[in-house]
Amino acid sequence: MKICVLGGDGYCGWATALYLSRKGHTVSIVDNFIRRQWDHEIGAQTLTPIQPLAERLKVWQDLTGETIELHSGDVCDYDFLASVIESFRPDAVVHFAEQRSAPYSMIDRKHAVFTQTNNVVGTLNLLFAIHEFAPDCHLVKLGTMGEYGTPNIDIEEGYIRIEHNGRSDVLPFPKQPGSFYHLSKVHDSHNMMFACRIWGLRATDLNQGVVYGTMTDEVALHEALVNRFDYDEIFGTVLNRFCAQAAVGHPLTVYERGGQTRGFLDIRDTVRCIEIACLNPAKPGECRIYNQFTEQFSVFELAQMVKTAAQEMGLPVTIEHLDPPRVELEEHYYNAKHSKLIDLGLRPHRLSDSLIDSLMNIALKYQDRVDRSLFLPQVNWRNSKNQRRTQTAPVALSETAR
Amino acid sequence: MKICVLGGDGYCGWATALYLSRKGHTVSIVDNFIRRQWDHEIGAQTLTPIQPLAERLKVWQDLTGETIELHSGDVCDYDFLASVIESFRPDAVVHFAEQRSAPYSMIDRKHAVFTQTNNVVGTLNLLFAIHEFAPDCHLVKLGTMGEYGTPNIDIEEGYIRIEHNGRSDVLPFPKQPGSFYHLSKVHDSHNMMFACRIWGLRATDLNQGVVYGTMTDEVALHEALVNRFDYDEIFGTVLNRFCAQAAVGHPLTVYERGGQTRGFLDIRDTVRCIEIACLNPAKPGECRIYNQFTEQFSVFELAQMVKTAAQEMGLPVTIEHLDPPRVELEEHYYNAKHSKLIDLGLRPHRLSDSLIDSLMNIALKYQDRVDRSLFLPQVNWRNSKNQRRTQTAPVALSETAR
Repeated sequence: MKICVLGGDGYCGWATALYLSRKGHTVSIVDNFIRRQWDHEIGAQTLTPIQPLAERLKVWQDLTGETIELHSGDVCDYDFLASVIESFRPDAVVHFAEQRSAPYSMIDRKHAVFTQTNNVVGTLNLLFAIHEFAPDCHLVKLGTMGEYGTPNIDIEEGYIRIEHNGRSDVLPFPKQPGSFYHLSKVHDSHNMMFACRIWGLRATDLNQGVVYGTMTDEVALHEALVNRFDYDEIFGTVLNRFCAQAAVGHPLTVYERGGQTRGFLDIRDTVRCIEIACLNPAKPGECRIYNQFTEQFSVFELAQMVKTAAQEMGLPVTIEHLDPPRVELEEHYYNAKHSKLIDLGLRPHRLSDSLIDSLMNIALKYQDRVDRSLFLPQVNWRNSKNQRRTQTAPVALSETAR
Repeated sequence: MKICVLGGDGYCGWATALYLSRKGHTVSIVDNFIRRQWDHEIGAQTLTPIQPLAERLKVWQDLTGETIELHSGDVCDYDFLASVIESFRPDAVVHFAEQRSAPYSMIDRKHAVFTQTNNVVGTLNLLFAIHEFAPDCHLVKLGTMGEYGTPNIDIEEGYIRIEHNGRSDVLPFPKQPGSFYHLSKVHDSHNMMFACRIWGLRATDLNQGVVYGTMTDEVALHEALVNRFDYDEIFGTVLNRFCAQAAVGHPLTVYERGGQTRGFLDIRDTVRCIEIACLNPAKPGECRIYNQFTEQFSVFELAQMVKTAAQEMGLPVTIEHLDPPRVELEEHYYNAKHSKLIDLGLRPHRLSDSLIDSLMNIALKYQDRVDRSLFLPQVNWRNSKNQRRTQTAPVALSETAR
């Protein structure tokens, strides 16, 4: 298939582009490299030293003989995006090109407005470009499990049959997102459903859980292909952060008692889910929704798993409970369905099997690059202004050097 | 109370500002006059010759002795909006300052993107400004009944108790909006609920039906206070259009068989509902949702009512069925609850009582200003590009002159 990966320089996008290329698909990447700019803004770096995209793509071509076409530009620039869709004529577009950090969206008003306009306008542009230039193309859009929040009923995959006053209908599952970022994904979902309905577009909305891990078979081929490993308070996901903390002997930082329960998946399952979605396109007019995760854990369970794994490797680990920077329920019911991708052939990796190889060993390998000042939350949901502009870089650097 | 009316130069905003002023509230208006600019863009004019806002406010002061403060600016300009909230310190902010036309949002990509960014950013700015400068202020936000779409179950007021797999929760009512404009209101609703939850803001989201009529007691005091009466295909609401058509002997234009059923209300009830909401503020952290309409009709029922009223006035009227420009169900279940504002004291005006006075007589009075070229839909939901930029103004004008 011809598959266009928007946001192909990012964490999930890069792993996906390589996986699809190796599977024999013709892949092109669209990216504007703003994810690398945000690293500079917040004063953080991926634990793994990633190469510039042009270098990565050159190494990939040298190793495999496969060419991945690069289109440098912003999906919020319609003329650019439309020209890519018109010239590449993809069978599927995989859309990762959004600001994906909840804390980033909660820094202050400008970051909230940026996140929502960037994500909503990018997706609107894509819907219009597909309608105009590739109406049969299948849109595979990354949503998030965070769209649902934590309702006191089972979370279904996108839609729920509601019986009410003697009547019944299948309706979009109610959404209770927990940050301006998660809200932006809810807005996208509503816009996509509408575009499918009025224009007959085909779409799959993948409500992804929290992704962990760095290694995929493709990334492992060469040091220059290494993927991001974010452990900082803004872009780092919880498991990556715990492993980085364990690697340098820092306490694992759990918000409150860590009762927050979420869906998780290995990045090797992310890339497989994307291919499964592409190979099984939605019908014209259909907006399918899959919940894309494999296991659910509470944050405290994760901390305990990392502690056990680290101890087996001879690393002493403690767990520290912090005041919660987010406004979220700490104890809650959580049971989210996730059978549709399994039914289509996904064979999940289990966290218990990959924790040491794909996470702890990476964290240990690059432990000298860890900046401890990035572990602690600096963005509080209760404030409408959080100070993240002025970095105390010299102090942080000297701490790291110790 | 001190009440700030955002969008106070528009159709609902103007009537609301005068009503609240006459009731003894201290009123300020925020507006950037873009609604008047859209008239120029689409080549339409309100049937009633409205005066510039400065003139309107001067006449109001001369007649009543009441001063309404005017702040000229855009709610998307945060520094401006925040300075108004900080200096005026309102007890309530009534937010009408959004692009409110479904066809306008469906003209093309630029109009869709404009509508969503304008409405979403304006509301985000307002949430941040209230949190920062007037955290106890009550936000009264205009939503729309169109957020719900036409589900096959009863529509509740914002929230619904769902029983599912033996568990139960009260969740936001699922939304199935029918245009990029209606989607923008759904996005706003989600953003507001979140801001109330994390910051303890007070908000009332008024999901308003289709408003009809022009006359309120205040507007009727002087010719210079006359309100808008939009009958064109972009901003005109269906009842106003039918009355304008009847007044000039044009067939009433019904899309398909006219089975589309919606909630309606008299503009005299709009202004009263706003005051009721202001006088009964939401609690801190509460995002209340009221369905603000008084009667529900199908489009064909409305056409028949206008036909009957016109015939009683000696005007012969026919009904014409057009291909539908929108993508919507033509036959559907519709039963929307609307008891909360009644419980708080609303005494609804009935369409059957006001049709002739507040609608037909206005249409007849200004019939020479009717431009028949504006009756027929030119924006088709199925197209991603509708030609509305190049106006055939000379032709339309000469037709009007005939």
